Order: sequence, then C-alpha cells, then structure tokens
Amino acid sequence: MIAEFHVYDTTLRDGAQQEGMNLSVADKLAITELLDRLGVGYIEGGWPGAIPKDTEFFQRLAKEVTLTNATLAAFGATRKAGTTAAADPQVRALLDAATPVVTLVAKSDIRHVERALRTTAQENLAMIGDTVSFLVAEGRRVFLDAEHFFDGYRFDPAYTVECVRTAAEAGAEVVVLCDTNGGMLPPWVAQIVAEVKALVNHAYGIHCHNDTGCAVANTLAAVGAGAMHVQGTINGYGERTGNADLTAIIPNLVVKNGLGAVGPAQLADLTAVAHAISEVTNIAPFARQPYVGMSAFAHKAGLHASAIRVDPDLYQHIDPVLVGNDRRMLVSEMAGRASVELKGKELGFDLAGQNAVLTRITEKVKDLEAQGYTFDAADASFELLLRGELPSGRPEYFRVESWRTISETARGAAAGEAASEATVKLWAGERRFVATGEGNGPVNALDAALRLALTVIYPELEQIDLVDYKVRILDSARGTDAVTRVMIESTNGAEVWRTVGVGSNIIEASWEALTDAFTYGLLRAGVAARTGAD
Amino acid sequence: MIAEFHVYDTTLRDGAQQEGMNLSVADKLAITELLDRLGVGYIEGGWPGAIPKDTEFFQRLAKEVTLTNATLAAFGATRKAGTTAAADPQVRALLDAATPVVTLVAKSDIRHVERALRTTAQENLAMIGDTVSFLVAEGRRVFLDAEHFFDGYRFDPAYTVECVRTAAEAGAEVVVLCDTNGGMLPPWVAQIVAEVKALVNHAYGIHCHNDTGCAVANTLAAVGAGAMHVQGTINGYGERTGNADLTAIIPNLVVKNGLGAVGPAQLADLTAVAHAISEVTNIAPFARQPYVGMSAFAHKAGLHASAIRVDPDLYQHIDPVLVGNDRRMLVSEMAGRASVELKGKELGFDLAGQNAVLTRITEKVKDLEAQGYTFDAADASFELLLRGELPSGRPEYFRVESWRTISETARGAAAGEAASEATVKLWAGERRFVATGEGNGPVNALDAALRLALTVIYPELEQIDLVDYKVRILDSARGTDAVTRVMIESTNGAEVWRTVGVGSNIIEASWEALTDAFTYGLLRAGVAARTGAD
Repeated sequence: MIAEFHVYDTTLRDGAQQEGMNLSVADKLAITELLDRLGVGYIEGGWPGAIPKDTEFFQRLAKEVTLTNATLAAFGATRKAGTTAAADPQVRALLDAATPVVTLVAKSDIRHVERALRTTAQENLAMIGDTVSFLVAEGRRVFLDAEHFFDGYRFDPAYTVECVRTAAEAGAEVVVLCDTNGGMLPPWVAQIVAEVKALVNHAYGIHCHNDTGCAVANTLAAVGAGAMHVQGTINGYGERTGNADLTAIIPNLVVKNGLGAVGPAQLADLTAVAHAISEVTNIAPFARQPYVGMSAFAHKAGLHASAIRVDPDLYQHIDPVLVGNDRRMLVSEMAGRASVELKGKELGFDLAGQNAVLTRITEKVKDLEAQGYTFDAADASFELLLRGELPSGRPEYFRVESWRTISETARGAAAGEAASEATVKLWAGERRFVATGEGNGPVNALDAALRLALTVIYPELEQIDLVDYKVRILDSARGTDAVTRVMIESTNGAEVWRTVGVGSNIIEASWEALTDAFTYGLLRAGVAARTGAD
Repeated sequence: MIAEFHVYDTTLRDGAQQEGMNLSVADKLAITELLDRLGVGYIEGGWPGAIPKDTEFFQRLAKEVTLTNATLAAFGATRKAGTTAAADPQVRALLDAATPVVTLVAKSDIRHVERALRTTAQENLAMIGDTVSFLVAEGRRVFLDAEHFFDGYRFDPAYTVECVRTAAEAGAEVVVLCDTNGGMLPPWVAQIVAEVKALVNHAYGIHCHNDTGCAVANTLAAVGAGAMHVQGTINGYGERTGNADLTAIIPNLVVKNGLGAVGPAQLADLTAVAHAISEVTNIAPFARQPYVGMSAFAHKAGLHASAIRVDPDLYQHIDPVLVGNDRRMLVSEMAGRASVELKGKELGFDLAGQNAVLTRITEKVKDLEAQGYTFDAADASFELLLRGELPSGRPEYFRVESWRTISETARGAAAGEAASEATVKLWAGERRFVATGEGNGPVNALDAALRLALTVIYPELEQIDLVDYKVRILDSARGTDAVTRVMIESTNGAEVWRTVGVGSNIIEASWEALTDAFTYGLLRAGVAARTGAD
C-alpha cells in the first residue's frame, strides 16, 4: 500500500474513447512526453493485447521515450471466467507490455457481473483475486479499477465491498472507485468513499465521468474523503461527456487545496501542455475551459476595466500566471478608454496619457460595433484599427481597385453542384495586379485570387493559412437582406489571429476579413510594404 | 420573503457577457420565448438604462411577447454614492422597464466597496437599503445580488453579513450569494451558505461561475445548504469560463434530487431548447455538454453493444428521454425509425406499419445528417423529403436549369460597397423562364431573380417573405474550404417554416434552402403545379 498522493492520467486510454478521437502511435508518444513534462505521477498508456496499436505503443515507448517524472501503467481486464490468469492471453499481453504498473479493471456491480459478464458473484471474486496475485507474483505493482463501483454500492454495498477487500488482500496497491456511468453527485461520492474506507482500510483512487457536470467536484469530494489517487484526462477527453478534467483538477488540488499534485513550475506549464495536447488530438480547445481556456481570464465588462487596472486580484480568482494563462481584456460595446488602453498595452502599445488617440480609438470601436463589428474575438482587426490611429499608420501592402466573384451551377456537373471563380484587381505601389482564382465557394475563390495576385511580391503569404471561417447574420429578421458578420481565423504555423468584416453583402464582409487577415499576417512576418519595383 | 424553490435564468444578461456573443434585440426576444417554454421561474432580461439595446428589449417584450410560465426581471445596480434612489437615472430606468421583479446588484466585499466603488462601508449599506426600499415602495419585488459575496465573506464575514441583513430588512425577497470570480469549491459554498443562513434567516439564492470547473456542484451545494433560488444560464454561457449551466443543474435538481425545478414535459424539452438557443446565439453546441450534448449519451459500442441493447440502464446514468436527448450507438445503427414515424405523425402523415417507407426515410435522413444537414429545426425541408418518399411524391413547381450570381465592387460607389446580381433559368412545365435580379448580397439577388421568374405563373409567391437567414460553418477548421449549412425561415403572414441547405459552396447551400422555402410555401398555399400553358 502506497501512501503518496498522486495524479494518474488516462488520456491515452479512457480519453481516447472520445467520439471523433483517433490517435496514432506517434500521437500517443507525443502526448506521453507532454504528460511527463506536466509531472503527472502515472501515465496509463493503453490496453496491450486488446488494441494492436496499444501493443505497438508500449514497444516503441520502451525504445524511444525516457520518462522523467511519470511511471508507466498498462491497462487490462481481470482474467476470463473459467480459466487461470497465467493461461489468459490478455493477462500475458499485460506482462509483455513490461510496465512497472498494471491497472486491472474488474466488475464490482453484481448486476454487471451477472448480466453483462454472465458469471457468478463467486467466480468474479476469484477472477479479481487470481489476476491481482498472479501479476504481483510476476513483480508488477497492481492498481485495481472497480468498474461501476458507485452504482454497484448503492444497489448492493456488501458485494462491491467484497470486491474491494478481495483486491486489497490479493495485493493491489490502490483500489480505484469508478463512477463509470458518471451519474454521481459530490455528497454521494464523499459519503460512499468514507464508508468504504471505514470498512476496508486501504489506499483508494477515484475515477469520474462528467455526466452530471460534476466530475471535477466528485473527484475533489473523494479526495476530501481520503482518496489519494486521482484519475482523469487532459482537457476532460473521454466517452460521452468525458472524464474528469485534470486541467481543472490539478490547479484545484494545488492552488485551492495545497496538495502537491505537481510542482509550481509544472503548474505554470499547464496551459501550454493542454494546448499542445489539443494540437495532437486535433480537437479544437474549448474557450471556456477552466484555468486553461482562451476565455478563462478574459474580461469584457467595460465598467470594471479601470478597477482591473488598479487591482486585478479583485476580479480574478487566481493569478493566471500560476497556470501559464494570461489575463485578456476584451474590447466590447461597453468599452471605455481604460479598456482600450489596457488592450493596447497587451498588444505592445503604450497609450497611457495619449488622450486624443484613446478617444479616437474608443469612438471608432463604438461606431463600428453599432454597425455590427465585434472586436473581442478579433484582436488582429483591432490592432490594425489601432495602428490606423497612430502617427505611424496602418501598413498598406496593397490597394484594392476592384474584385468580382461569380458562382454558378457547374457546367456539365451533377445537379446541385456549383463552382465559383473570383477576379481581383490590386495595386502594390506603382504596379497593378489582376488575377483570377477558382474555388468551391466565392470566398475560397477570392482567397485563391488574392494569393495569386500578391505572392509575386509577397511570397511570405505562402506561410499564411486560413483555419476557420465563421458567418453570423445580424438582425437576421430581415431575411436575406440582413447584415452579415464574418470572422476569419488565420495562422502562420506559430501564431493564430482573428479578423472581422461586416456588410450587407456577405462577400464584401468576407473580403474585408480576408484582406485584414493577409495584412496582419504580413505585419507579423515583419514585412515592409513593397512596390512592384522592388 | 418567498418560499417556493425556483430557477432564475440570466442567459440574456450575465450569459451575454460571453466572449464573442453579441445578441440583437430580436435574438433576445427569441431566447425569452424559449426560456419561457422551458419553464424557468424568472427571466432576467438585461440592464435597462445602462445598455440601450436592453431598454429597447423591455419595451418590445411588453408589446410582442406574452410569458406563460416565467416572471420577468430587470437588472441594475444600487444607487450611486451621494445621491438618492429617486434621483438616480439608472434606478429610474429600472422602474421604466416596468417588470414585476427588479434584481439589484450590490457590492458586499468591503475591498470592492473601498477600492472599486471608492465609497465607505456605511454609504454602501445606505445605498443597498435606500434602493431596495425605494423600489419596494414603488411596487416592485426586489431580489438582491450580493456581488463577490463569497470572497468578501472569507475576507470580512461581518461586513458581508451586514450587507445581507440590510437588504433583507429593506424588503429584498431573496438575497443572492454570488461567487462572482468563480473561485469557490463545493464544501466552502456549503459551509458559508449555512453560516449566513444561521446568522440572518432569509430566502437565499446562489449565483456561480465555472472558474474551478465546479459551478454546477457549487450551485447544488448551496441548494443543499438551503438556497431556494438558483441562477444560471443555458449552455453555461457567460464571461470567462461561463456561468453555472442550467442545462446540467435543472436535470440534477429534478432527476437526481427530486426538486421540482421544472415539470417532466418541460424537462423532456431541455435538449431541444438548449439547441434552439445555440442556433440563436450561433455558438456551436459543445458535444460533451452534460445531458444535452450530442455525445452525452453516445456509446462507442464495441464490447458492450449487445449488453446495451438488452439492458441500457447498465450503461447510462439516466434515461436520455427524460431530458429529450437520444442514446446513440456510434458504430451500429441508431434507433431512428421510431422518431421518423413520430415526426411524420406530427406533420400529419400516418406511417405506422409502412416499414419500407420508414426505412427509406430513416436512411436518407442519416445520409443527409452525415453530410451536415439537420432537420431538428427545419421541419419544412423534412416534410419535403418525406413527401419525396411517398407514392404521391414531392410537388415539382419548377425545375432548375441553372443559376449564376455575380458579386463585385459597385462601380462608382464608395470603397467597401459591393453589389450583387443573379440570373436564374427555370422550367415550369413546358415553359422556360430566364430572369435576372439585383440585391445587396448574392442570396438576396437569387431571391429576387427567382421571384421575378416564377410570379408570372405563381403569383402566390408574393405572399411569401423570407424572415430569417442563418449560416453555420461546419467542420470549420478547414478555413474557407469548409462545409456550409444555411437555414432560412419564411412566412406567409400566418405560418412560419424553416428550410435547410448544405454544400461546400455557400451560394449553393443558400439556393437549396431558398428553393425548398418557395416549394413549401406554394404547397402550404394549396397550389398545384402549373405549366406555362395554364
């Protein structure tokens, strides 16, 4: 029985059950390194034997990765009914994975034993006892996941406790109490963990799912009742509503409860690790995610901006630096000069005392927002607007003479298919460019034409990609005659920026966001305006 | 002091603080009707006086909307320091909103009183007492939001309790304890609510933010400690990490704790209302959202497929039907035929026993949904699809030969202005129509051209107006190359219908929704297909 409190990550196993997630072995290796950097105690790598990719993962990991902080665990089930642990090929595959820890999942709800596993209460206990002692005898440390534990305990407490006792007596270091269906609430978890601990004094873990929106609180409730092993996944990945989110649990444990789950330097890496892992999983981060989300420390209320400047701690529950996140000021329709000044500072412009400039920018933001623009999610357009009001001005890489898009039913194609082309006419310095691009939509075609025209003198544009395109119809109760707002997200591979365009014509709004995106990208790349003569 | 437990929705006020959310008055009216349908007790509509759009909202609401279940509340601040409530224009604006309930926000953390409000402890108490009693004397029911209550209580319990006592004695029906910065954990909330209730016996409310990932659990902890007024927002919208999510809190209260927050029929509408509101806000729903998320009851079947079919309760914490959601099997088929049959019945088609038709429609819906269509909010397109599978067939009022739109910078107009024109070529029976329309956007121009071509033989089209047009980019991480879904809402003055179109080309998707809208409108008008010879 181990005594040290620790975090056990199951992103690679239970997290990978998430709808739409499909990790390659290389993805899993990359995530393992990030988890180790974050300082979790244990990393559950997968289910060798059951999932071929996971078998390969353990083989490659042993050769390619050296873990600094974490101990590796392989996951698998107790032996099948009516055989022995030694004779069960899945148990052998667990040994072959050669990890210091093996985490065994066992049924502990009598209904699942009888109806899903279709075996007897006694045989299930024997399966638990046999498999644990076999693996311990083979030199493995064993953790036992008691599946459906809470539902089982509420239905038949005596049997679930018998499962726990059997595992503990057979040598499982930690018995992990699982809310597999995710239906628990914190007071229920706290009470049941305390009761079980009173009946069988042992080291307990907790494994929660978020079906009631309480996975984080349920996990903390179990810790409050004595659990010393905390399972979860980064970004709360997992089946259905996901697993307990370690990116919220870890700072709650460390900052709020003073439990040393990870060190301060590791905690300050939390946001970076969470985002890096979402790059690997290719699942867009959730802006409102606690602690690490893009919006987690973003303030909109213009009223409070001046107070935030004086005393940020009045308006944030922790210093975002602790978890590697940033405070962000959003420029909104309630913007005052104070929030414009703060936003400018965030973007690297010291506007303190420049009252005329601040007033001009604030007025302009208000005017534009009344027309339908929004800058709280369009930092790049805001920076271009701000630069336009400074003596140095907004850089003018090109001037637009005209553009045109044509969308029509594709000739000779199946009914319902359409094609678009766009022609743009631009000037860069003294030189005129005319280019035509094609696309599967009018904006896509404009993007192609703009690139074609400009890359001749701005080859840097090849590094810029559009990654997201959103359309919002404002005042939409006017049918197709409404005002349209377009937001475009672009990247140069390292940085991401957002631009906005508004107009009664959707193509015009898109064009505005598109040209802002290119202008900002060139600015970021440190490019100066060129003339055709360069 | 009121005794009845209730839910108080602040989606329209605090929820609207979310980054990137910008609701028009029409959006707010639409959300109000959905909230009322869900059966929340109170709807906080906004801050009249401070936000011009909110002033307009209360005016239009009084004329245009009749609330069936909910009571309307206007939100505002206590009077300014050094004046009287009667003389404060913001307090007057609250009266002008003419709502039965006024919810006042007051500082209760002494640090905020001194450093942000820059007034004295005594004056703040006077501001609370004066404003509450003034509004009560004017015939309003008053709820008081004690801002930063929990942080304030942990710093200086005596002062925050004094604020609470002052409000209660001045006649505030409910004092709402706010975790404004969102940093609390459930045991802290439970203890503080119980302590305050022991000191000042009154009706208490709870208002939480999700900065620790515990907003739902914190809310439940306060209810466990005696709070009888629960604030939150639909889909957890709100500043930073958002407010407490009512779509999780309501089913937790009703299903898990047996508290009658809403009735069973209303609860069964929860998923539909949550999704409809996200259509209005145009913020993509979060798949992993508890209870109402698309993945909330989705099972990666695999091993457990047959067990789930035999005994689904073993694998789900509640029956998803209770909250209007569906169990989804991610690999095998979903049980769609029953819902197609039900939906058909709703539209007036008895499909019971017509297994071949039901199977064909179900397959078609599944195919189309995989491409990005959604029929939840597009009844008219669904009915046309359904009719297409019946022996009588879908009515063919016209056949499209081709269409084309051109959008370009307007000649001789100010920079940044664009114009569109569209040409359509159609057949009705033996007669060919070619027409060109102009508009301020490509879809507007297509609408004009289509009307011009068809009204010659279908003058009934003059009665049909497009009233709403929405665009959603699906799989938007592919930039301007993404799949687009367009929803169009149309009316004939008496009835409203919605149609959907999907395509990689936004114009094509719009065209599909537009032609469906016209077809359905003619069908509703009882028009039979005509040939040019009529």
